[in-house]
This record gives sequence, structure tokens and C-alpha cells, in this order.
Amino acid sequence: MTDRLIYLPLGGAGEIGMNAYVYGYGAPGKERLILVDLGVTFPDMDGTPGVNLIFPDMTWLKERKDRLEAIFVTHAHEDHVGAVAHFWEQLGAPVYARAFTAHIARLKMEEKGLPDGTVRTVSAWPERTEAGPFTVGFAPISHSIPESSALVIDTPAGRVLHTGDFKVDTAPVVGEPFDHAMFEEIAGEGVQALVCDSTNVFSEHAGRSESTVGPEIEKLVASSTGMFVATTFASNVARVRTLAEAGERAGRSICLLGRAMRRMIEAAVSTGVLSSFPKVISAEEALDMPRDNVMLLVTGSQGERRAASAQLAQGKYRGIELREGDTFLFSSKTIPGNERGVIRIMNQFSEIGVDIVDDDSGRYHVSGHANRPDLLEMHRLVSPKIVVPMHGEHRHLREHARLASESGKRGIVAVNGTMLDIGGDAPLIVDHIETGRTYLDGSVQVGALDGIVRDRIRMALNGQVIVTVIVDEDNEPIGEPWCELRGVPTTGRSNAPLVEVLEADLNQFLARAEAKTLSDDDRIEDSMRRIVRQTCLDEIGKKPEVVVVVSRLI
Amino acid sequence: MTDRLIYLPLGGAGEIGMNAYVYGYGAPGKERLILVDLGVTFPDMDGTPGVNLIFPDMTWLKERKDRLEAIFVTHAHEDHVGAVAHFWEQLGAPVYARAFTAHIARLKMEEKGLPDGTVRTVSAWPERTEAGPFTVGFAPISHSIPESSALVIDTPAGRVLHTGDFKVDTAPVVGEPFDHAMFEEIAGEGVQALVCDSTNVFSEHAGRSESTVGPEIEKLVASSTGMFVATTFASNVARVRTLAEAGERAGRSICLLGRAMRRMIEAAVSTGVLSSFPKVISAEEALDMPRDNVMLLVTGSQGERRAASAQLAQGKYRGIELREGDTFLFSSKTIPGNERGVIRIMNQFSEIGVDIVDDDSGRYHVSGHANRPDLLEMHRLVSPKIVVPMHGEHRHLREHARLASESGKRGIVAVNGTMLDIGGDAPLIVDHIETGRTYLDGSVQVGALDGIVRDRIRMALNGQVIVTVIVDEDNEPIGEPWCELRGVPTTGRSNAPLVEVLEADLNQFLARAEAKTLSDDDRIEDSMRRIVRQTCLDEIGKKPEVVVVVSRLI
Repeated sequence: MTDRLIYLPLGGAGEIGMNAYVYGYGAPGKERLILVDLGVTFPDMDGTPGVNLIFPDMTWLKERKDRLEAIFVTHAHEDHVGAVAHFWEQLGAPVYARAFTAHIARLKMEEKGLPDGTVRTVSAWPERTEAGPFTVGFAPISHSIPESSALVIDTPAGRVLHTGDFKVDTAPVVGEPFDHAMFEEIAGEGVQALVCDSTNVFSEHAGRSESTVGPEIEKLVASSTGMFVATTFASNVARVRTLAEAGERAGRSICLLGRAMRRMIEAAVSTGVLSSFPKVISAEEALDMPRDNVMLLVTGSQGERRAASAQLAQGKYRGIELREGDTFLFSSKTIPGNERGVIRIMNQFSEIGVDIVDDDSGRYHVSGHANRPDLLEMHRLVSPKIVVPMHGEHRHLREHARLASESGKRGIVAVNGTMLDIGGDAPLIVDHIETGRTYLDGSVQVGALDGIVRDRIRMALNGQVIVTVIVDEDNEPIGEPWCELRGVPTTGRSNAPLVEVLEADLNQFLARAEAKTLSDDDRIEDSMRRIVRQTCLDEIGKKPEVVVVVSRLI
Repeated sequence: MTDRLIYLPLGGAGEIGMNAYVYGYGAPGKERLILVDLGVTFPDMDGTPGVNLIFPDMTWLKERKDRLEAIFVTHAHEDHVGAVAHFWEQLGAPVYARAFTAHIARLKMEEKGLPDGTVRTVSAWPERTEAGPFTVGFAPISHSIPESSALVIDTPAGRVLHTGDFKVDTAPVVGEPFDHAMFEEIAGEGVQALVCDSTNVFSEHAGRSESTVGPEIEKLVASSTGMFVATTFASNVARVRTLAEAGERAGRSICLLGRAMRRMIEAAVSTGVLSSFPKVISAEEALDMPRDNVMLLVTGSQGERRAASAQLAQGKYRGIELREGDTFLFSSKTIPGNERGVIRIMNQFSEIGVDIVDDDSGRYHVSGHANRPDLLEMHRLVSPKIVVPMHGEHRHLREHARLASESGKRGIVAVNGTMLDIGGDAPLIVDHIETGRTYLDGSVQVGALDGIVRDRIRMALNGQVIVTVIVDEDNEPIGEPWCELRGVPTTGRSNAPLVEVLEADLNQFLARAEAKTLSDDDRIEDSMRRIVRQTCLDEIGKKPEVVVVVSRLI
């Protein structure tokens, strides 16, 4: 069989989050593999209550780890780097990243107690790293975090450009501007496939530069009295610097609050990404200064319950309390699904009398992703045979594929688990792999389909009744069955305590039950479950989950 | 003591939802009362899993029902009328509404098996209804549902204008246009207080008329092939008619899908609100027609799981399946918090190949609420002494009060439970009432603070371990303790089944426990709970909820 070049998203294609893209080259079933990015997605109460983090299901790759040459990480956002430390031991391949990303990845490895040397720092294009049949270069590309990189993946079947997350920004404030000439040069040798960010394909106008928000932020800060507080993603180092500099110009000292905020700025300084940053003061120092002279830069732009912003909204954080007349700026966009949390904080601030400025106007925030015209520019610059949209929900991938096809490229929608051969003139679907999600729950990885989270959701929706009954050696019940309610109303239609109504019904059942039933735990459980559910339906109008514990004296 | 005029929001002030506003007139503590609106708000998995509906806590009013003269309902949206039937027996006051609203309210009363005659239909202003010291008129005002009304509430202390929900729309397609002259006339006698919708106070530009969406929708429908499907709030009868007429002009037959859609159109026709509506066909008839000749108008604009739109997205609804090339229009805005549900549907349609048109552009939807300039216009028209912002979160109320104060009115923020005296030159806070929420859970009303829902959330976040142990007459344990897991990972750090690890630890405890411990159920429970939580923390990194059932043989 002839060698082929395959692309297989295990995460990130058909969703925004937990990116994990496999490339392979070789004879079918024997391809040597590399993995690009290994990120997380975040749980929510609707579908994943109690879960800490969501990972792509890496079973397919773990079963082929002997063929895995390397892991390349495009940038340090959690949805690209967040799962690396959790799977590193299971995959056993070297991890490559540029300095800033490597720094963040190493912190994660350290937290998991993994050895030094697991992450290798590479320099930007034109430096390249060999990994089996692949040669991979990190081409700097503008995004909302330092040192984001497109990967130039050279293979015997041609060159693939994997954009990672990007925008077209020629003045990104921190880090390398978008370099048209470099991409033209990269494209010069011919590009077989462009695997491309799709996040903002529905945004019709060209994206705005990070440098456009500075003047607006400066005006706002200059016109504010009282304490000035701003939140943004800590990893958006350019934005954090823009905010800090606006504060400094307005005569304010800068105080960074929240672990991620300090960690990201430290990473940026120590890796040389950030050459200058205003002097920062501690929370204690901030407390001693006139409010007009302080600017707080805080974590929690998405309304996260434990972040600095949420704690300030609830009262105080590290001794600092906001007051009437202070200003709080969301220099950020609320990610769909986080609205409730953000709105809760806004209203808490409103109750204190803090003036809130959000990004409704578009003045104080710009997106880190390429909009539709920017995507078209990328298509044109790179001029690939094939366009494979990634980093998007199905609707984004579909629209992006359509966009590519309109300009004569071969676009294709390939969601997680779709294995493509991208070595020919047109992309071919060659296999479908079972993919899914794995949950980090406490310290344990559990499968999304294990039923554990499903059980939690059922208990949350329906409440639970626990029934215990004791049966003796002769299959005679001892005493009466006992009920406990959790998350179930205590009284219903009859106005008698629900527990008593249930126990009476169960007792009646036991008294009448035949020996055949009483000798069989499953029968007892089934019958009692049915009785509890029916009685609850009559009394309180819903059927709770039921656990029946039959104890036998033997 | 002299008589006073009080205003007391029990719901709707400090939130968007579950509106319930009390007005009173008389000697302090002896005021005769009326209630304006009695609505619901909707539960979510984050804070109210398993709950069916959320009501304002009406305890304060129930305890004073002898002083309640009447309930007036401004319009038929669920957040204004949804709780009327649930509290009608407890409050025992006549309900007044205009025909369309009364029709909807009666359907709700019927569903609860309440007698006829509970809802009295009144005509529009200048007709008035007497209720103790109050005389109340329903002044037609434009909104996104037929026959929305501002209430003209005359009292011995002067006139109050309670806007209800409104926008300034002089061409609302269905129902009465905003009537400047009428409000000038109402204001002519002098208005003591304007109690005013605040929803869109942060929207800077004047609101657009309902009539502006028709031409855009017509263009879209005319240019579409395949089946055309549109969703909007069924209660937005004007929009439903606009959509239907656009379909009719494009040669399509109209099929209404979803209970609310049919119910609202029937209500509008039977009350004379809707004089013309295109002929509708059944789902069966739609199945027999060429796809190009069909328009479906469906429920589920907010991504509700059981609505017609969600069912179409998952496969089929009443036999109808969408296909590649069909078009689905969201003629609606996603309410914050509903994003995930709407996005899920969009992606499901994308997978089928259905083209989705949403309202990102603002072309196919307009809001039903007054924007900032419209609020200012209302202030100017009515020229009240006092402005009391309502129908908004805290941030909306605060901004609206500020807006009023800027133009020389007395604005005040009064959240749920704040009792104002609004009879003087300036509003006075005279009391704070304990307010809150009541949940409809199955068929039972439970208090938000009863702990029932809290227990569900804890089970959802932490999972649950159930321990049963039997102790005999001599305080000796019989057999070994028994564990059941629900929503808890089955194996942890030691790779042994968690149940076995737990049972071993609990057994060890029992074997060593002193008689003093074993004679005391509380001690057994406390110790066992602690052991389970600690062992789970070691094994799986989290502490589940624990139920210990001690059974004693006596």
C-alpha cells in the first residue's frame, strides 16, 4: 500500500475547546504520528456537574503511542495546552513549544510532579524540528496570547500549514506582528493543505488590531475617579500591558490580583516576551494609597466564582473593597454560556455603586481570531489545494468550508473522529474513529459514558429516596422499611410527611409479599422502587431516583 | 396617622422575571392593596435543577389577603401572568385583564381546575375599574405581545402610571400603536409617579418598530428554496403574522408547530386581536406538499429541549424532517443564559445541512422594550414627580434611576422587598420586607431556602455514598457495613474498587468502635461520614455527600 498523509481531529473540530489534532504519514495503519495541541474544555452544571476539566478521549492515540513521534503545542491557551500534563505519561512523546508556551506547559508538568525535561523549547521559523517523517516549524502568528504559532508541517506528501489560533494583526502590541511576507514565503514552495481556525467565520468585517483598544482604554481611565479595576484574560499579555500603561499614564500604580494574572506576567517577563511593564505594587501597598492612584488588574473576566473579580463583587479580595464611584471595566467578551456568571458580578457591583463598563460598545476589547475577510486573506496568502476548517463548532466548520469552496479551494468538514487523507488533490474521508470526552473528576479520569455524571444529573433533577429493609434468614422482614429523602419535598398532596406515606406503602407491600419475592433481592428492589416512584408521583408530582438497600441476616 | 401611598415590588425589581408589584393606600399597616402582575421566572441547572417554575414568595401578601382588593395583569407574558393560577386560591382576589390577556389567564385557571369567572375582562382606557381606594385603567401600550397595557392607577394621593412592559412603536403591525396623545392626556392631570420598565436602559439608540422587520423577512423568504422554517416567541403575534404573510407572498402554505404557537394564534383570533391571518395547514398536509411551498412557524426560539425547533433539529417533529438546503430563521434574540441551548440546535441543523439565519445582524428581530431614548421620551411625556424603575436587574434599575435624576425627576432604586412611600414630593423608603422565591417542584411549592434544591446541587457536584449498617440489641454490629455509590467514580488511586476500600475502612472502624459509640446513632453516622469523606478524598480527590443509615434490631 502506498504511503498517505492523514489528518484526524480528536478534539476541537465540531466544538470550540479541547483541541487535539493528529497528523500521520506512512502506509495505512502504520502511519508515524504527531499530535498538535492537547487542550481542555470546561465543564458546566448543565451537562457535567462536579467535573473539574474535560479532556478529549485519547484512547485511539494511547493505543498507538508506539507510533507517536512528538506533541507540538501552538500556544499556551488552556484549550490547547491544558491537557498535556494529564496525558504526558500515557502518551510518552516529547513535547515541543516556543519559550512562553513551554514555560506555561512546564508549570503544569511541575504541578503534576512530572520530571524536568518533558517540554522542549524550540525557536521560531525558520528553525524546524524533525519528528519521524515530519519536519515542523513554528511560524509566529498574531493571536491574543504571546508567541502563538502556525505550524509549518512538511511531509513527503507536501506541506501542511496548521494555523493554530490566529488573527491578522500587524500591530499586536506584544509579540510578533502578522507577517504577510513570511507566509508568502512559506506558501512559495506550495501548500498541500491549510488547516485553519474557524472561530470567527461568521464575523463579516475585518478584525481590529489589538493596538486600537489602547487609546480608548486610556480615555476611559483618564476620565475615571476612585479606584479603577479592569479584568481580561490574564494570558492576553498585550491587553494587560495596555491596561497597565493606561493606568500608569493616569498616575495610577498597578496591582495584579489573581494567581493567573501574576503567573502570566511573570512568564512573559521571564521568557523575554514582555520587555517592559509598569512597576506593580502589592495588595497591601494598594490599600495604603489614595483610591484615585490605584489600578487593579484582576482575573475573572468570565464571572468565574472564585476569581478575584467575583470576590471583589462579593465584598473584598485581599483586603481591598470597592466602593461607590469606583469603575470596573470588562476588557473582554463573555464566552457563550458564561453570561449568567458575568451578569451576577455586574449586579453585585451595581449594588455597591461601582460603575461597570463592559464591551457592548466594542471599544475596549478586540477578538483574537480571524474574521471572515481575514480568513479569506489567509486562504489567498497560502493558496493551498485543500482547506480543512478546524477550531469551530459544526456550523463554523461548515461555513468555513463553504467559504473555501467559493474561492476554488477544496474545503471539507471533518469533525472529531473523521480521518482524512489530505495528500491528494482533494481531501478523502478514509475512516471514522470513535472519539469522545474524558472527565477529570477530582483526581480521577472517568469516561463521559461511564454513567457517573449521568447519575449526578438525575439526582439533581429528580432528587433521591433511599430505602433500607432488613430480611432475616427465613426471608421475613425485620422491623419496617426505612426511607430517607435527599432533594425531595418533605410533604405533598396529603399533607402527611412524605416519608411516612412512603414507609406505610412499603410496609404494606412487605406485609403482603410472598416468600418468592422476599427471597429475591432484585424483586424486592424492583417492587419497592416502583412503589416509591408511584407514591411520589401521586404525592409530589415527580418520580425521584430510588436506591433500595436490602440487608440480609444470614 | 395619615394615609399614604405605597409601592412594594415582591418580584421583578432587581431581576428580569417573576413580576409582582404591590400598591397600597391607607393608614400605615392598614393600606388597602392591589397587586399588579403575578409572573414566573424559569429555572436553570446551575441554581435550580429539577425545578419546574419559580414564583415570587407571596407570603407577605398572603398574610394580608384580607386587604387585597384586586389583581391587575398588564399583559400575557409568562413573567407577568404565569403565577396567577398558582396563587389565585391563596390570594382570593378578582383578576382583571384585557381580553387577550384574560383569555390566556383563563386557560391557566382551567388547567389548574379553578372555577370559571376568576378572570374579569376589562376594556381599554378610558374605562376604569374601582378597587378600594384605587381606580385603575388599562392604557394600551406597544410591546411584543397584543394588548399590553400601562396601568393608570388613580389614588387619593395622585396618579401613578405603571408602564408594564413597553416600547415606543407607532407601527406595531398587530394591536394599538403607541399613542403619544393619549399619554399626554393621561399626564395632563399630573402624574405623581411613573413606575417604568427598565430592560433596555443600556441600549443607546431609539428602538426600531416591529414594522421594520417585515420587508427584511420577505426578502429572505423570497430568496430561499427548500422548506422555510422560522421560530419566534409564539406570543409575539405580530411577528408570527409578519412571518406568515411573508410566507404566503412567497407562495408558501403556513404550518404552525408547537402547542404555544397554535394556542397564541387561536387566542389572538378568538379575541379579535388578529383580524387576518393566512390560512394554516396541518403537519400532515405540509408533508404532502413540495418543500418549496411550505413555511413552518415553530416554537423553541430559546433552544428549549422539548420544543418543536429542538425536535426538528434532532430528527423530526410530527413526521416532518428538515433536509440539506432548507432554511431555519431565528426571528428572535437569545435571552442570556439560553445560549448553549440555541447553539446546540444551530449545530444540529448545521449537521443536517440546514442553513441557519440568526439575528446577529439585527435584521430579523426587534426588541419589545423601550431603549434609553424611548425611556427619556416616556419620562418627558408623562412628566412625573417620581420615577421608580422596575422590570430590571439592579444595574438596569440603577442606570434608569440615574437617567431620571439627570432630567430632574426623582429617581430611586427599589429592589424586591423595598417598600416606598410614593405619595410625596420625593420617594421615601419606609420598610424592607423579606422577599424571595418559591419553587414549583413537581406539583408542590417549596421554599427556595428549604434546602431541597441545595441538596440536589450538592449531589450533582459531589456524588453520593450511601452506607448502611445494622446494629443488634447489644450494640454489636451485625455483618459488615455496606456502601453504594451514586455519581462517584468506581475506582481511584489504589486501583481497587472504591466500594471495597470504603467498606474495609468502615469495617475496621466498627471493629474498633467502643460501646459508647455504637450505642449512639449520631456518633456512628458522624464517624462513618468522616471516614467515607476522607477515604474518598484520598482515593478520588473529592468528598461526596454521605448518607449513613443505621438500622437497629430491637
